[in-house]
Amino acid sequence: MTPLEQIPTADDLRATLERIAPYIHNTPVFHSKRFNERAGSHCFFKGEHLQKTGAFKARGAMNAVLVHQKIARGKGFVTHSSGNHGAALAWAASNIGEKAHIVMPSNAPKAKIEAVQSYGGIIEFCTPTLAAREQTAQAVKEKTGAIFIHPYDNYDIIAGQATATMELLDEHPDLKYLLVPVGGGGLLSGAALANAYFGAATVIGCEPTNAADAHESFNSGRWVPVTSADTIADGLRTSLGTRNFPIIQSHVEEIILVTEAEITEAWHYVLARLKQFIEPSAAVGVAACLKKSMSGKTGILLCGGNMDTLKWPLR
Amino acid sequence: MTPLEQIPTADDLRATLERIAPYIHNTPVFHSKRFNERAGSHCFFKGEHLQKTGAFKARGAMNAVLVHQKIARGKGFVTHSSGNHGAALAWAASNIGEKAHIVMPSNAPKAKIEAVQSYGGIIEFCTPTLAAREQTAQAVKEKTGAIFIHPYDNYDIIAGQATATMELLDEHPDLKYLLVPVGGGGLLSGAALANAYFGAATVIGCEPTNAADAHESFNSGRWVPVTSADTIADGLRTSLGTRNFPIIQSHVEEIILVTEAEITEAWHYVLARLKQFIEPSAAVGVAACLKKSMSGKTGILLCGGNMDTLKWPLR
Repeated sequence: MTPLEQIPTADDLRATLERIAPYIHNTPVFHSKRFNERAGSHCFFKGEHLQKTGAFKARGAMNAVLVHQKIARGKGFVTHSSGNHGAALAWAASNIGEKAHIVMPSNAPKAKIEAVQSYGGIIEFCTPTLAAREQTAQAVKEKTGAIFIHPYDNYDIIAGQATATMELLDEHPDLKYLLVPVGGGGLLSGAALANAYFGAATVIGCEPTNAADAHESFNSGRWVPVTSADTIADGLRTSLGTRNFPIIQSHVEEIILVTEAEITEAWHYVLARLKQFIEPSAAVGVAACLKKSMSGKTGILLCGGNMDTLKWPLR
Repeated sequence: MTPLEQIPTADDLRATLERIAPYIHNTPVFHSKRFNERAGSHCFFKGEHLQKTGAFKARGAMNAVLVHQKIARGKGFVTHSSGNHGAALAWAASNIGEKAHIVMPSNAPKAKIEAVQSYGGIIEFCTPTLAAREQTAQAVKEKTGAIFIHPYDNYDIIAGQATATMELLDEHPDLKYLLVPVGGGGLLSGAALANAYFGAATVIGCEPTNAADAHESFNSGRWVPVTSADTIADGLRTSLGTRNFPIIQSHVEEIILVTEAEITEAWHYVLARLKQFIEPSAAVGVAACLKKSMSGKTGILLCGGNMDTLKWPLR
């Protein structure tokens, strides 16, 4: 059980699922006859909003923490995250009795701060720039010896996120399409690998038009950073990771873009039909499905459900 | 298989569940570690918002329709309802190829009208008074020979609603408390009977302070109609049925009242913790649980999930 240095193999993924299974939920899969009638396809929604910590991030974080358990002993972990990865790492570290230092921007939403605290994470605030976040994380690492776990640009994280798709394929091995939201690419690269080894679906990344860096990188064949990201899908505002991009290039068919209006409409439709409260990032895959009818069995990863219950996206 | 003329027996309930099982969902049961920590009890939420038609009403309607199948042949069914029962009866009748006439007030919300139509129900509009509704339903009945199915004051409906509690007790036979919202009393009287026959829980009705007729009837021992019902729990604005009240008197321990603020807070908490989109009526049982800590295994019936996704109750 050593950290992965290269793209996870089928055996790596099997070992990962076995390793983290005692800690995570095999989340339920939802479907709706009336959703299918409207979408013109046969959809299966993997409910990672019901995962521990409210997002698929618990999978990768738990895997990374277990893989580094020996070398992290007594020193703990560190990451920078304003989103779900911080809470997930705090939760994962607490499961094995280790500390987690979470570097967060000083303007992080109260709900995110409370989530990290509720799992016992030690918050280090910094000014809200990427440079300050990386610098602060580096300082914590040097001071404490904590192991740094990147939110997505990390093969152990990618292997962990792949397990969501492994579970879905275990239940529905004959999926024809698999729709996955893409931000940093942790979930999408994991899904693409899992499908390459254990499935036969066409894997499609789903991204907001307003943060279309993955779409541009994918279509041009060269990595492009996100420059503006004015989208309600706050989990998808990051650029693709260097480890994630090549996997996506090899195993993903296309990246579909959806507008803010389409994301909002899909979010409301999931509430109305599935009665599930997901975060806007999770509605991006749903929006893509409603936009482009897939004729056949379609899996959609609902990546998370962490959002302020008072901030409804209005139509 | 004839309509019930008296309080359903244990055998009647078993036969009912067997009869409707091919049509309805055995809905999932949710729980949350963090919800339990706050509530100070061990809660199990029966997800009837994921039932066919989005509410437990599908159970009773399906039972009533099957029981009357022979005598309704070619004539269909009729009811008056501005809420979930109308959609449920339309759905149930369509399952056996019969018509359903649903009398609705002319000011019924568009979403409710569309729900009835989507299940093939024939809508008869009337002026928005109880007298007009009853009169219109009577006229439809005389004209078409359709069988009238009351939303709750009907033993076949009560037997159908009881099956939600039967399923919950089948999974958790050792419930110590069972919290059930009460409006007309169809769900509560059914739950009370199911628990009397198959469980050993203390059954508690949960009602908005702003529509406290069941509380008053229960405590005074004489039936009191609802006079004002200014509550967001729109499913609980009706008076107790004459068949429901005696069952509740015999098998329910107490009725807890909750304020509008408590209902709203519980609704938000269910979104944040369980990620489930329920209607305000379903939050009434949750609010009661958060108000009055039950020490021990507690079942809570989430009765439905039909509400406008744009009308959030604000805190």
